[in-house]
Amino acid sequence: MTAHIKLPPLNAERLWRRIETLSTFTLPDVPWTRRAFSPEFEKARAWLADEFRAAGMQVHLDEGGNLVGRLPAAAGAPERAPIVTGSHCDTVMMGGRFDGIIGVLAGIEVAHTLHENGIVLQHPFEVIDFLSEEPSDYGISCIGSRAISGKLDAGMLAAKNPQGETLAEGMRRIGATPEALDKPLRGKDSTAAFVELHIEQGPVLEQRGLPIGVVTNIVGIRRVSFTVHGQADHAGTTPMDIRHDALVGAARIIDAANRKAGALAGKPHYVVATVGRLSLTPNASNAVPGMVEMMLEVRSDAQSVLDTFPDELFAEAQAGLAQLRVRAEMHDLSRSLPTDCQELVMQGIEQACQNLAYANMRMPSGAGHDAVYMAPTGPIGMIFIPCLNGRSHTPQEWIEPSQLLDGTRVLYETIRVLDERL
Amino acid sequence: MTAHIKLPPLNAERLWRRIETLSTFTLPDVPWTRRAFSPEFEKARAWLADEFRAAGMQVHLDEGGNLVGRLPAAAGAPERAPIVTGSHCDTVMMGGRFDGIIGVLAGIEVAHTLHENGIVLQHPFEVIDFLSEEPSDYGISCIGSRAISGKLDAGMLAAKNPQGETLAEGMRRIGATPEALDKPLRGKDSTAAFVELHIEQGPVLEQRGLPIGVVTNIVGIRRVSFTVHGQADHAGTTPMDIRHDALVGAARIIDAANRKAGALAGKPHYVVATVGRLSLTPNASNAVPGMVEMMLEVRSDAQSVLDTFPDELFAEAQAGLAQLRVRAEMHDLSRSLPTDCQELVMQGIEQACQNLAYANMRMPSGAGHDAVYMAPTGPIGMIFIPCLNGRSHTPQEWIEPSQLLDGTRVLYETIRVLDERL
Repeated sequence: MTAHIKLPPLNAERLWRRIETLSTFTLPDVPWTRRAFSPEFEKARAWLADEFRAAGMQVHLDEGGNLVGRLPAAAGAPERAPIVTGSHCDTVMMGGRFDGIIGVLAGIEVAHTLHENGIVLQHPFEVIDFLSEEPSDYGISCIGSRAISGKLDAGMLAAKNPQGETLAEGMRRIGATPEALDKPLRGKDSTAAFVELHIEQGPVLEQRGLPIGVVTNIVGIRRVSFTVHGQADHAGTTPMDIRHDALVGAARIIDAANRKAGALAGKPHYVVATVGRLSLTPNASNAVPGMVEMMLEVRSDAQSVLDTFPDELFAEAQAGLAQLRVRAEMHDLSRSLPTDCQELVMQGIEQACQNLAYANMRMPSGAGHDAVYMAPTGPIGMIFIPCLNGRSHTPQEWIEPSQLLDGTRVLYETIRVLDERL
Repeated sequence: MTAHIKLPPLNAERLWRRIETLSTFTLPDVPWTRRAFSPEFEKARAWLADEFRAAGMQVHLDEGGNLVGRLPAAAGAPERAPIVTGSHCDTVMMGGRFDGIIGVLAGIEVAHTLHENGIVLQHPFEVIDFLSEEPSDYGISCIGSRAISGKLDAGMLAAKNPQGETLAEGMRRIGATPEALDKPLRGKDSTAAFVELHIEQGPVLEQRGLPIGVVTNIVGIRRVSFTVHGQADHAGTTPMDIRHDALVGAARIIDAANRKAGALAGKPHYVVATVGRLSLTPNASNAVPGMVEMMLEVRSDAQSVLDTFPDELFAEAQAGLAQLRVRAEMHDLSRSLPTDCQELVMQGIEQACQNLAYANMRMPSGAGHDAVYMAPTGPIGMIFIPCLNGRSHTPQEWIEPSQLLDGTRVLYETIRVLDERL
């Protein structure tokens, strides 16, 4: 059957070279680190703009600090909203060379291939390097995509980094126009379709030996704090039966959260729950822990799970805590809704996979992405490719060039399919 | 019956005034803090030397930095080893006004009362303010009493405080002679008896409404580290059933340690077990914990419990850890043996309680004390008095003046009884 497949005429070597070049814009002693708003980031952005132009695109920085490359639609085509792809080139501290980055560089490669082959779409085609998808030094993530859908409010713009610079000042410094962000930069129906290529950041595709994941939705995240109040007593002189050990109480909550999420997962919803942060007071070897503060993060594609999981866990813990003579408080810290991908885009990706004979599966995204904030502007979808051991946000993050080529081919073909269908 | 009791002619008002005066030697902004080797400590020591002299004692600073006051034995009495009491005037950061302090000031009051009433014992009587019973800034505790029994080795003397000063330099600075510490300052049988008055630092006496505890032994302490190795993964994208969550593994060990110690305590041994310190990596809300390091402290009056508790806990945890796809390591950090008090001294205290009609109970000490390092020089014993809510090492540490008077009376009477019996 392979004989009938018409592979997109991508330049795999050029694509991988761009990955390697972009990775050189890093803090030299802390690879791979390219924090948004940093000198490395600004240098990378200047290089990226050149690459956009080399791919035949017009480039501009929008008011939200997004670097946007654009190929016009075919001359004489009816005026249509653009088909958009993209992701982000910023990283966490000691991050990787692929998370976000492949979505931008694959987009450039698609444009470059279209351009050099004289292929012109019926829609304008845009590639966006969104500003600061990762949590920035101002404490805000998805800054550029939030700006696009009008979700970057005055409070966020006033947030300060450790040096005391506000986000608005930082955005102005890199060429954005924060005073224009009191309304969405792009309105409803301003995007014909948005498709983002990204590494899975999890182990599912690798374990199943599949080259492509078709994202069904991006999970919602609810974060709550649990504070367990006990009493700090002398660890030598306080008998076991009259202690108020906050850490033992916390331990039971941690274990219960893990068991509960394990029991719920996949029946039928995606559910993960994690206590990832914890601090105890006084944290001394000879003191019974008097207080534990910890953060529980629950992610699910089901709003009902986000609504009930922490509260049920808290209620179920009460008897055990009372037995330990400790008490707990729970407070909501943040909550984001699950975001659905649209059938239109998912089916476009599946058609592309079929055209190119790539096995694939539908799966949720457990990580957040800029696509969430593009959803208000039009239908969205995401293409996942596997990454080594499912690892991301670490210098060990890795994909093979062939895996990147698989994903870029599917991205190219999806855009072609959507351009025909829309 | 009370009519027949002859109470020691102590000056309760003078004793309490000394408590209040000594408490003024504190870091002004961080009451009650009088760290050994600090300017406050040196000022307190100068004041203490004056009080020793006011009580009729000869005073000297020994080579180990202990401030020693001495009343000679009766003229013509056979040459005998001294009866010794004392404790320490240093505190932890934000400590209390009684821990250690009452053992020194009650000793001074006993001497003062003997002296002003012309009562002369058949033994020399010594009151010692031991140097730095609390963990010092050099990381070593019980510095003075270790020096007395030759347990302050060259490695300890070379330990540095955060400013880079060695313990030997610090000791020299306050007038000690560290180069003389290659042998015990006091040998075997150099003490006729050592009796230390101390607050219980636990809630047992208060809960039972008893004014006096007769310490049977000072528990041994074993500290082990547990390191749980998992894998730091993305908390959003890593399904529950393939995680390696080190914190969940740690939580199970913490809970098991608490349950195990609770089940063993009092059957028949004193057993407490505490995980008081814990750190996790990476400690981020969106990361599955990859590693947890924690410290388990077990205290018991039974060597067999210290020998087996951590090892059994570790063995019993293995199945649960394997289920969680994590593994743990255990390493011994430190171990001190349980130290017995001698019947001679315990019965002397009980006789004193009987003479003065104080209800009392035998009990172990869950906290360490200078008495441990006096044990090699002769028989030891300790008198406990209750403290408010069993709290110590906190600004809220509190005893009533009447409780201090109870303890000082029993100390006085014990010394009188031992002076007759020995």
